[in-house]
Amino acid sequence: MTAQELEKLLINIKNGTSTVEEALEVLKTFPYTDLGFARIDHHREIRTGYPEIIYCAGKTTEQVKEIFRVMISKENNVIGTRASIEMYKAVKSITPDAVFYSEARIIAVQKKKPETPENRIAVITAGTSDIPVAEEAAVTAELLGNEVLRIYDAGVAGIHRLVDKLPEIRSCKVIIVIAGMEGALASVVGGLVDKPVIAVPTSVGYGASFGGISALLAMLTSCSAGVTVVNIDNGFGAGFSASMINRMK
Amino acid sequence: MTAQELEKLLINIKNGTSTVEEALEVLKTFPYTDLGFARIDHHREIRTGYPEIIYCAGKTTEQVKEIFRVMISKENNVIGTRASIEMYKAVKSITPDAVFYSEARIIAVQKKKPETPENRIAVITAGTSDIPVAEEAAVTAELLGNEVLRIYDAGVAGIHRLVDKLPEIRSCKVIIVIAGMEGALASVVGGLVDKPVIAVPTSVGYGASFGGISALLAMLTSCSAGVTVVNIDNGFGAGFSASMINRMK
Amino acid sequence: MTAQELEKLLINIKNGTSTVEEALEVLKTFPYTDLGFARIDHHREIRTGYPEIIYCAGKTTEQVKEIFRVMISKENNVIGTRASIEMYKAVKSITPDAVFYSEARIIAVQKKKPETPENRIAVITAGTSDIPVAEEAAVTAELLGNEVLRIYDAGVAGIHRLVDKLPEIRSCKVIIVIAGMEGALASVVGGLVDKPVIAVPTSVGYGASFGGISALLAMLTSCSAGVTVVNIDNGFGAGFSASMINRMK
Amino acid sequence: MTAQELEKLLINIKNGTSTVEEALEVLKTFPYTDLGFARIDHHREIRTGYPEIIYCAGKTTEQVKEIFRVMISKENNVIGTRASIEMYKAVKSITPDAVFYSEARIIAVQKKKPETPENRIAVITAGTSDIPVAEEAAVTAELLGNEVLRIYDAGVAGIHRLVDKLPEIRSCKVIIVIAGMEGALASVVGGLVDKPVIAVPTSVGYGASFGGISALLAMLTSCSAGVTVVNIDNGFGAGFSASMINRMK
Amino acid sequence: MTAQELEKLLINIKNGTSTVEEALEVLKTFPYTDLGFARIDHHREIRTGYPEIIYCAGKTTEQVKEIFRVMISKENNVIGTRASIEMYKAVKSITPDAVFYSEARIIAVQKKKPETPENRIAVITAGTSDIPVAEEAAVTAELLGNEVLRIYDAGVAGIHRLVDKLPEIRSCKVIIVIAGMEGALASVVGGLVDKPVIAVPTSVGYGASFGGISALLAMLTSCSAGVTVVNIDNGFGAGFSASMINRMK
Amino acid sequence: MTAQELEKLLINIKNGTSTVEEALEVLKTFPYTDLGFARIDHHREIRTGYPEIIYCAGKTTEQVKEIFRVMISKENNVIGTRASIEMYKAVKSITPDAVFYSEARIIAVQKKKPETPENRIAVITAGTSDIPVAEEAAVTAELLGNEVLRIYDAGVAGIHRLVDKLPEIRSCKVIIVIAGMEGALASVVGGLVDKPVIAVPTSVGYGASFGGISALLAMLTSCSAGVTVVNIDNGFGAGFSASMINRMK
Amino acid sequence: MTAQELEKLLINIKNGTSTVEEALEVLKTFPYTDLGFARIDHHREIRTGYPEIIYCAGKTTEQVKEIFRVMISKENNVIGTRASIEMYKAVKSITPDAVFYSEARIIAVQKKKPETPENRIAVITAGTSDIPVAEEAAVTAELLGNEVLRIYDAGVAGIHRLVDKLPEIRSCKVIIVIAGMEGALASVVGGLVDKPVIAVPTSVGYGASFGGISALLAMLTSCSAGVTVVNIDNGFGAGFSASMINRMK
Amino acid sequence: MTAQELEKLLINIKNGTSTVEEALEVLKTFPYTDLGFARIDHHREIRTGYPEIIYCAGKTTEQVKEIFRVMISKENNVIGTRASIEMYKAVKSITPDAVFYSEARIIAVQKKKPETPENRIAVITAGTSDIPVAEEAAVTAELLGNEVLRIYDAGVAGIHRLVDKLPEIRSCKVIIVIAGMEGALASVVGGLVDKPVIAVPTSVGYGASFGGISALLAMLTSCSAGVTVVNIDNGFGAGFSASMINRMK
Repeated sequence: MTAQELEKLLINIKNGTSTVEEALEVLKTFPYTDLGFARIDHHREIRTGYPEIIYCAGKTTEQVKEIFRVMISKENNVIGTRASIEMYKAVKSITPDAVFYSEARIIAVQKKKPETPENRIAVITAGTSDIPVAEEAAVTAELLGNEVLRIYDAGVAGIHRLVDKLPEIRSCKVIIVIAGMEGALASVVGGLVDKPVIAVPTSVGYGASFGGISALLAMLTSCSAGVTVVNIDNGFGAGFSASMINRMK
Repeated sequence: MTAQELEKLLINIKNGTSTVEEALEVLKTFPYTDLGFARIDHHREIRTGYPEIIYCAGKTTEQVKEIFRVMISKENNVIGTRASIEMYKAVKSITPDAVFYSEARIIAVQKKKPETPENRIAVITAGTSDIPVAEEAAVTAELLGNEVLRIYDAGVAGIHRLVDKLPEIRSCKVIIVIAGMEGALASVVGGLVDKPVIAVPTSVGYGASFGGISALLAMLTSCSAGVTVVNIDNGFGAGFSASMINRMK
Repeated sequence: MTAQELEKLLINIKNGTSTVEEALEVLKTFPYTDLGFARIDHHREIRTGYPEIIYCAGKTTEQVKEIFRVMISKENNVIGTRASIEMYKAVKSITPDAVFYSEARIIAVQKKKPETPENRIAVITAGTSDIPVAEEAAVTAELLGNEVLRIYDAGVAGIHRLVDKLPEIRSCKVIIVIAGMEGALASVVGGLVDKPVIAVPTSVGYGASFGGISALLAMLTSCSAGVTVVNIDNGFGAGFSASMINRMK
Repeated sequence: MTAQELEKLLINIKNGTSTVEEALEVLKTFPYTDLGFARIDHHREIRTGYPEIIYCAGKTTEQVKEIFRVMISKENNVIGTRASIEMYKAVKSITPDAVFYSEARIIAVQKKKPETPENRIAVITAGTSDIPVAEEAAVTAELLGNEVLRIYDAGVAGIHRLVDKLPEIRSCKVIIVIAGMEGALASVVGGLVDKPVIAVPTSVGYGASFGGISALLAMLTSCSAGVTVVNIDNGFGAGFSASMINRMK
Repeated sequence: MTAQELEKLLINIKNGTSTVEEALEVLKTFPYTDLGFARIDHHREIRTGYPEIIYCAGKTTEQVKEIFRVMISKENNVIGTRASIEMYKAVKSITPDAVFYSEARIIAVQKKKPETPENRIAVITAGTSDIPVAEEAAVTAELLGNEVLRIYDAGVAGIHRLVDKLPEIRSCKVIIVIAGMEGALASVVGGLVDKPVIAVPTSVGYGASFGGISALLAMLTSCSAGVTVVNIDNGFGAGFSASMINRMK
Repeated sequence: MTAQELEKLLINIKNGTSTVEEALEVLKTFPYTDLGFARIDHHREIRTGYPEIIYCAGKTTEQVKEIFRVMISKENNVIGTRASIEMYKAVKSITPDAVFYSEARIIAVQKKKPETPENRIAVITAGTSDIPVAEEAAVTAELLGNEVLRIYDAGVAGIHRLVDKLPEIRSCKVIIVIAGMEGALASVVGGLVDKPVIAVPTSVGYGASFGGISALLAMLTSCSAGVTVVNIDNGFGAGFSASMINRMK
Repeated sequence: MTAQELEKLLINIKNGTSTVEEALEVLKTFPYTDLGFARIDHHREIRTGYPEIIYCAGKTTEQVKEIFRVMISKENNVIGTRASIEMYKAVKSITPDAVFYSEARIIAVQKKKPETPENRIAVITAGTSDIPVAEEAAVTAELLGNEVLRIYDAGVAGIHRLVDKLPEIRSCKVIIVIAGMEGALASVVGGLVDKPVIAVPTSVGYGASFGGISALLAMLTSCSAGVTVVNIDNGFGAGFSASMINRMK
Repeated sequence: MTAQELEKLLINIKNGTSTVEEALEVLKTFPYTDLGFARIDHHREIRTGYPEIIYCAGKTTEQVKEIFRVMISKENNVIGTRASIEMYKAVKSITPDAVFYSEARIIAVQKKKPETPENRIAVITAGTSDIPVAEEAAVTAELLGNEVLRIYDAGVAGIHRLVDKLPEIRSCKVIIVIAGMEGALASVVGGLVDKPVIAVPTSVGYGASFGGISALLAMLTSCSAGVTVVNIDNGFGAGFSASMINRMK
């Protein structure tokens, strides 16, 4: 069943020409592969628009390799986040197409190039130390087909470094703001643009930063409307959500 | 200066036909009114696409009334959130157009009807007790011009109540999920749809709910990609961000 | 004094044919061995139905070995949790019957095979990274005589991977649900089955997972009735309690 | 479809004589009533063995009344927890069978008497102030058909008040231990009996009790095996889980 | 002993013309009045440069009145913070000079007018709801002799409302920044001026504001150097410290 | 069995002239009265040296009255802490000897006057607002037979108010230090005396005091040896422990 | 000035035969040695009854050695806590009298043997893993001249291991209870003895133990009167306070 | 544009002889260098009175070296905090003027010697373990041109070690107080001097110190007026703010 067929069925149900029962039939046929330690969801691309993403942290190198092996065999694009160089080497040994983005800690195998949307996604960091999280966001967005505008080290302690980039930022369709410490950049950007801002707190800082809690709380309580938040250091989540919005028509 | 003129200037800068200096000139002329206790930002609608929203909690009834008076005189649409019935009466006394949405605690004066986008926004709650927050989100989205699909009390303890609504939910462009206690609904919905999910934790619950912290943490750590989060009980923020995404072209 | 004798005495007290004083006499004779650094409770099997379990973390290898030596000499079954490979080797050196379950980190010496109850215990994990905790639960349950149904990596982001296993899950008498991050799986399973669910939060995740706090709070505030919770990463506790329930007649 | 038919179908699937597809068909036909503000799950009794329980806190009196009206019309037993006297009066006005347990804050309408299991459930509190939570647990268990042994104010500061009740406690099949402050009673009871202990922390105490957090943490980290925990003040959850275990055969 | 004499003695000690013993003699003669429930420190003005300030919260009206009575009798200037209108009336009944600043919740009796320093102190708030805390800071600073520049409601969501006031702000010698929610204003101001910034987090906000914790953490982890922080809602402390710095020569 | 007999028995056991079994016999005969909602421990005075203390908060007035009635009938001294004026009136109605210490919130009935030890207990507070907690400590100590030296409002902001009382403080055998906010007084006193200091954090303060957490943590981490800590606002606990130490011989 | 002279002076002041001024003179002459990185307080033994104790953690080996060198030269007894084996070797190189208690992590140099009080101090642990903290307490108490009764691994999961030691425990003058996880042992012991209990929470445990917070909170909120608490893992503090009480006459 | 010209412009604006527009023109011309991973703010010295400070933690050695290279090329003074010895070596390789303060972890290149103000800054620590943070503060202050008075290990457990230094401390213009554990020193110093106190909590301590939270909270809730606080272990921030105040005229 292709995405088009699925969509048609859902529209029929909405219009009353198909029944709820028919919709539920769809669920029954969702395929997955049971590896014992992992159940790979081959249908996610159709259901949610994107292939399953492998969160590599906490998995063994052997498990990561096995999951890649199965997914590649279905000709899916595959993305592995929080990956180590060892995991990359293991994956590379079974598929020469594997690419490693070391700063972003992402392993990617891209079987088919996604269509590129018209607009860009901006990825802005407050500091230099936030760059690894930013790269996770930017590379994720790029692998999902988007063009990315990177603006790094533009924190509020020297706000003119941000102001002169405003026109370029405003030309993007979604803005990802990445900051540790007090996380004020999300509020400042949110007050200057009319685009959705996805804020990513980072664990950069010490003492009362409490591993990113300060930035997280600051972003959640932002006085600027239009700001939503993802988990601390979750560059992937921000890149994924931004791509979802950017690809909308 | 109208929004069109502003946009044109920004494009020129991007293309190199205008200078950064010209962009900054724009900033200088942003108007506001200083009431002593409040500085009303008349330019926000042009800059961010929406008028200033008044957060009424913590303001006196007299202050709220004064802010409405000034904003209405500029023929802006005005939205006041977290408002009391007393505040509404005070605003009503100066403008008969004021409307009060009591469950959502919103005062609205709508001078011009916003254009309605093609797609709907879904607002789903886990329980009945989450409805006031949901109404804040739904009314906000509606006042900003959107159509809203409300699905209330569809928590994961009886997941079939959600499943048979899936086709209708998937036809929306953005999904707002509102839940207290363990907030699991956001992850479940996020795993079933390919649309951005904005999750709103609520302070519904007791004991280890800790006023919404449990739901907040659960939503931030959701295993489903595509979920972003706003502050506890922040129905307004979710409705505003959802509208921003829904109105995109 | 055997368990039968103890039980008879207690029943007599309940029926009034023995006095409270007689019950307390029992307490006086509970035997234990004082090793200086540990007091081994030889009577626990009679009193609580199970032998003492050794929590190895925080003990030295020498202490673990000594405790095993004493307990084995009484022909008890012995279980050591949170054990290292070094501890296992030390125990093995004194008893060739010692077995090491490396993923579960359990050392076991089984002198007598427990009776196997009719029903199985289900152990379900949300992700692959939760498997070590799941194995601690499953191996504990098996060592206490139960059959275990393992379903790993069935998190709510792809709920169909769980749904098609429902009939098998519902045939078990107790369900152990193990999840990190937002811990939503416990609520979803709790809403689909009519069996006691023992939820184990794990420290899997990062950022706002806070070492398992998110999952813990989510499980404690679950909207599904019938869910009880044990400590973060406490696979042993879940396996032990599940066995207690499963062995009931 | 009756529970017997459902069970038969599930067994057939397990045995391979029915397909997974047939099991999923079942899900499609789960009935519920949509009241707008609530979706009442009429099928829960068959699916989980118990009717839906109404958590009244956070609902309006009118909403509670409406939910009772619909559920009673299906001849279900209905339980409303965290109810006020006003809610009771509203329910009473539509059904004279409604009963209010004021200390437990429970409204009950019992259309059919559940079968009484052979064994009792013990409900033990550390102090007098824990009694309201204990009554919520005890009344819940009784409404679900169980006999309850109540032992109140038996905290560890005077442990002999507990010891002489041991024989009676050991004759129960499940033990609910309810304690605020340091919650030590759960560990002490857990060390003396061979039955599952469900521990309920209460918000009784002041200062470093932090509304029940101290007792919650103490119970979660209990050194006695066989102890599982529910949310702070969640007498209902404990009573419900205990009943589930006690009714097992 | 006057301040001049004290200063002379200290200089002598530093220069070696007086001994440490002589300095300690000074301590012995510090006078105070013991009221039983309070020990009034008459020497604080000489020792720390300012009279004792009465923190009225938690004291009874009668106690506040008594403390004012004793201090006034020594011809001291007296400031009572966190005072109620009842306390003011009681103080007014014994001294007609008492003044009440209701928004700042301060009772003041000023026997001698302090000298006015050349420079002003700026008090800036992010929102209208922060004004009560700001007034506590501003009135404190004024009572200690300083001129104050008030700029209220200049939060980062509309940063141009702050930018056009920059020249005036930079002409002040110390800046007090008062903000709730995410507290970003402190960092933004700190990055634009070369004066000490004293940041006051306020309890304004809801949900993840956690009564001011978000703003507090954000201010403590500010990426702008030159920012120090006082307790949540501590307008008095900020006004006092700012005055100390502003009066320096 | 009197305390003397009990003591003799214990000594015999220690000396080997009685057996452990004989000691345990003692436990069997500990008397208590079961009121249903409370189990009154008549033996506590013998076992721990003091009668049972009633923690009245969380109990109904009727329950408090009943407990007093039973305890008085045994001619015990009775102390009820955290009591309301209503509870006092109820107790007074059954025994004219009842006394109410309103600031300390203690109801006392004293049937026999305890012996007065040679040394005094010092009770020192940092501020006036700490006095209610101090009175709970002081009255408790006095009811248990001790003489108390009260020094109130001697916080470290004016340390000379403490220094001139040092000789008198050092003449006491135990020191209770009571402070809210930063709780520094405990460390300062601990560094100046060679007597055990029992520190009581109070919930006095606001903002980052977090209801006494600041003072609690400060006292626990005191750099002065000899400081032990009780719960926030637990004046009773401090008075009780101090009395225990002061009465030692 | 000897302790006797100091005591005489203080008594004179109390009796009015010496003045406060004379007492303060004493303070002026307190000697210390300034090493630049440390100020050694030679007078502490006289002032507080015990020599200065060196907290070695966070100091360099060189600094520890230097502090020992100076203190030994005054013929003081010296105790260094939280010391490493390297520090011990460095101290040993300058004084052959240095002794290292490796489990307790204490370096001691004892120049004069303290007098031994009549009564013992009991040190009881809940588990084997608590022994290092217990040894810090026990060795501290012994170095300060006391005899210690050690009872290790007597947690509440097997309470009979404690009960048969009760007579011996009751013969001690102070009881130190050391427990991690839920810390219930402090309450149980506190309910069985009439001696001051000093409770030491340990960081033993995992998950919701939160590095000792669970045990700390449980001990602070103990329902047994007579229990005071020291910092997590602070064996030294407990041993020191216990010695202070035990040495009292 | 020099600082003088900037100042003149600002004064003109204030006096009305220049317009707000002219002030904003200034912002447009603020220079910075974009290195891709960092945006170096060359204008900060003019705008805030000090050059940009490099926070080295979280940056790679290569990044630190590049930032130094660019900044040095502008003849700025440069300060790098939280630097490693590797970073220092890399910087040294490009400029022989680089100096490393190893205890303070600061790399400095000083092109022009700042003017020395008349008064000193006092840096006081409670313990020896606080010295690294103190050195960060002291070296920062010295590099910014100030003279520093260091007083280390003067905690409140031996307060006479502080008292005899009071005259010298009072001769300073700003006091930095650095303490871990309970942080009481800030309050004590604040009560004895009439100068601004900047308090720095340190992560020194264990258990309930919680990495500096205890000291942080204690300092924020200090009962002494005139105390402001910076982040845990933020010696740099304290030194910077102190310098700002000390250099004022």
